[in-house]
Amino acid sequence: MTFEQSFPIWSRLTQQERDAFTQAAVPRKAPKGTLLHNGAADCVGLILVCSGQLRAYILSGEGKEITIYRLFERDMCLFSASCMMSSVQFEVTLEVEKDADLWLLPADVYKSVMEQSAAVANYTNELMASRFSEVMWLIEQVMWKRFDQRLAGFLLEESVLDGSDVLKLTHDKIAAHLGTAREVVTRMLRYFQSEGMVTLSRGSIRLTDRARLKSLSA
Amino acid sequence: MTFEQSFPIWSRLTQQERDAFTQAAVPRKAPKGTLLHNGAADCVGLILVCSGQLRAYILSGEGKEITIYRLFERDMCLFSASCMMSSVQFEVTLEVEKDADLWLLPADVYKSVMEQSAAVANYTNELMASRFSEVMWLIEQVMWKRFDQRLAGFLLEESVLDGSDVLKLTHDKIAAHLGTAREVVTRMLRYFQSEGMVTLSRGSIRLTDRARLKSLSA
Repeated sequence: MTFEQSFPIWSRLTQQERDAFTQAAVPRKAPKGTLLHNGAADCVGLILVCSGQLRAYILSGEGKEITIYRLFERDMCLFSASCMMSSVQFEVTLEVEKDADLWLLPADVYKSVMEQSAAVANYTNELMASRFSEVMWLIEQVMWKRFDQRLAGFLLEESVLDGSDVLKLTHDKIAAHLGTAREVVTRMLRYFQSEGMVTLSRGSIRLTDRARLKSLSA
Repeated sequence: MTFEQSFPIWSRLTQQERDAFTQAAVPRKAPKGTLLHNGAADCVGLILVCSGQLRAYILSGEGKEITIYRLFERDMCLFSASCMMSSVQFEVTLEVEKDADLWLLPADVYKSVMEQSAAVANYTNELMASRFSEVMWLIEQVMWKRFDQRLAGFLLEESVLDGSDVLKLTHDKIAAHLGTAREVVTRMLRYFQSEGMVTLSRGSIRLTDRARLKSLSA
């Protein structure tokens, strides 16, 4: 995918802005497992996803994780360029979940265009608002949903993302997504298994009663 | 405070934008307890705080609350005008905590200026980023702090906001701020009392060992 094809509001840029972006943008292939952006440690710039899947998460002081959102084809990540905005006072880590083709756009180039362009600034606003909405959804989940409901919802979502009923996920990985301890995940999965909703085997989970998982998560 | 004095980036507006805002802005006095904005039910417009204190919170389906941030003098609330941005997919309720003088600016007026003005759009970005940062802080608190630490931090913060060691707060109200049940608050406050950190009496809490509360919250 060319930069032009992946940048969401290309048609609203001036020729000068288009030139600034295309000259500065760098393509990058990132295999599964790559850490693209590591909290405040760096400011790699904006990331545009051409293909693949990224996971944005936060880390506690003790190394615990929780997934805050995912990025897919045509998504753009602002927070890998958080140095661009002084009011962004938090750190997000970005990891490649499925082999990805990306464009990297240096933060200073994007920032200097955004400062002059109402179209780019407004687009950035909408982007931030939609990430904000995902985080507010997460707060509601964490505050007000029981863990079995969250786990059922997570398994169904993963199954849609992978297009499969068999999830290759360790209990550790699920715990990191949901911000809990591995033991809690294991205990709940065993309960799901005893109720016939999943079948567990080494390194994978088969969803065997989607209808029931769905009604549980709702 | 005139609208001009309360609007943060007045100097960066064109004369036409200034006129649009001053013609549309409406002053409002809102006594303590007023509900200014009730989730998706209305879109009152942007709120500029001249004086007083507001609380933004979210509500669960069962009526549970958690405070997500506070607004003080010269703060502006975007989410009372959430109809302005299609990507804002969550609902915030806004309540006056201390008698407030406000300016209300209709969402459509702000939006039409923001669409044309890079300065206003960039300011809106920074505003959203700073609220976003507060919500990310909240997630970290909720996920990774013990309740005694959160409660100690909350009591100290309230004491600073009120300029007093005696807090006029019911256990119910504290529970709503922190997103938990009243019983949990009562139990923890009694423990704090047994440790000499607070003294409880009907409808109020006196902080008696700030140093210890501080080290607990840190």
